[in-house]
Amino acid sequence: MDNSDGQAGRTAASAPTREKLMAAAAELIAELGWGRVTTRAVAERAGLPHGAVSYHFRGKQELLTEAAMFAFARAVPEDEFAALAGVEDLIGFIAAEVADPDAIDPVLSRLMFEAMGEAERDPALRERMGAMLARYRELMIAAVRAEQQRGAVFDGAPADAIATLLGAVGDGLLLHARLDPGLDVPAALSALRALLAPRPS
Amino acid sequence: MDNSDGQAGRTAASAPTREKLMAAAAELIAELGWGRVTTRAVAERAGLPHGAVSYHFRGKQELLTEAAMFAFARAVPEDEFAALAGVEDLIGFIAAEVADPDAIDPVLSRLMFEAMGEAERDPALRERMGAMLARYRELMIAAVRAEQQRGAVFDGAPADAIATLLGAVGDGLLLHARLDPGLDVPAALSALRALLAPRPS
Repeated sequence: MDNSDGQAGRTAASAPTREKLMAAAAELIAELGWGRVTTRAVAERAGLPHGAVSYHFRGKQELLTEAAMFAFARAVPEDEFAALAGVEDLIGFIAAEVADPDAIDPVLSRLMFEAMGEAERDPALRERMGAMLARYRELMIAAVRAEQQRGAVFDGAPADAIATLLGAVGDGLLLHARLDPGLDVPAALSALRALLAPRPS
Repeated sequence: MDNSDGQAGRTAASAPTREKLMAAAAELIAELGWGRVTTRAVAERAGLPHGAVSYHFRGKQELLTEAAMFAFARAVPEDEFAALAGVEDLIGFIAAEVADPDAIDPVLSRLMFEAMGEAERDPALRERMGAMLARYRELMIAAVRAEQQRGAVFDGAPADAIATLLGAVGDGLLLHARLDPGLDVPAALSALRALLAPRPS
């Protein structure tokens, strides 16, 4: 379950170096765009010799892929996400991420757009991102199902379909709020709460 | 209302040249990424002399911006969108755009990710894209409101908040379906229909 770090550092001691490289790579992807980042620039930004990159990563694409996945996992930690007990927690989570446009981390949102664009070109990256989405969706399905069972959420549709909608609403609102700072996200989330309320039988 | 072509060709006769340049630019943005496109490559791809670019556009960024906006407007024509009479039409529209992952135009989705990424760096592009989103949202608000008034859609939340959710669901599902071809979009849209159904009073 928790082996999501895949190509992790060769030793526990080397993890900080690996993380420094990934943090530098994430910054540079956001600043320059995926295609313009070089391993040399990443090493320089991290204050490390160029050889550190090839010690920790099999080439530029692996470095950038790991950097993006690490940044996403850190921004939305799976264990924190798993602790969201119900639909109201999920909506609150979307609110915290999206409702204040100034609170949206611009490095992270740029990184997201860059990774989505690159995923169109790189099937391995697309698979990693798709698998990450699928894990979050599983957690959301469990939360929706539990609430349906205790009668707290509309049960006229399967939990997995509602979870898919919730995930789409979250990322769609994030996207639209970045483009249109005037978007009334709190009103949209209130409407979402009203739609998800259980119907009187 | 219909002056959305902004920096349109100087004469009606020059519109085809302008459109050829925009089509070539859109392709190249999708292929290379926004930052790597040059005006020279665009002219070459369009089979036109390099001078055609500076005749029609004030520099590279204007060319690429107009190319992206033109491609989006052509993919989802506003007048066609305005003709969608109700919420079921809107859901059908999302289904047609998203439900079959193979049907999603890869040039268009790459272009969308590239433009969103670039909009993080270029406020003028962000404003154009935000304004486009706002126009589609206005059309969706009108559709939702009309259906609420005739009792065909849940009226426990304001039309504009529901329209914001619908827009977010559409783009969020598009995004997730690109990353995860196994996503059950039809099931999610069925759940959306069930959620939007009017409640028995």
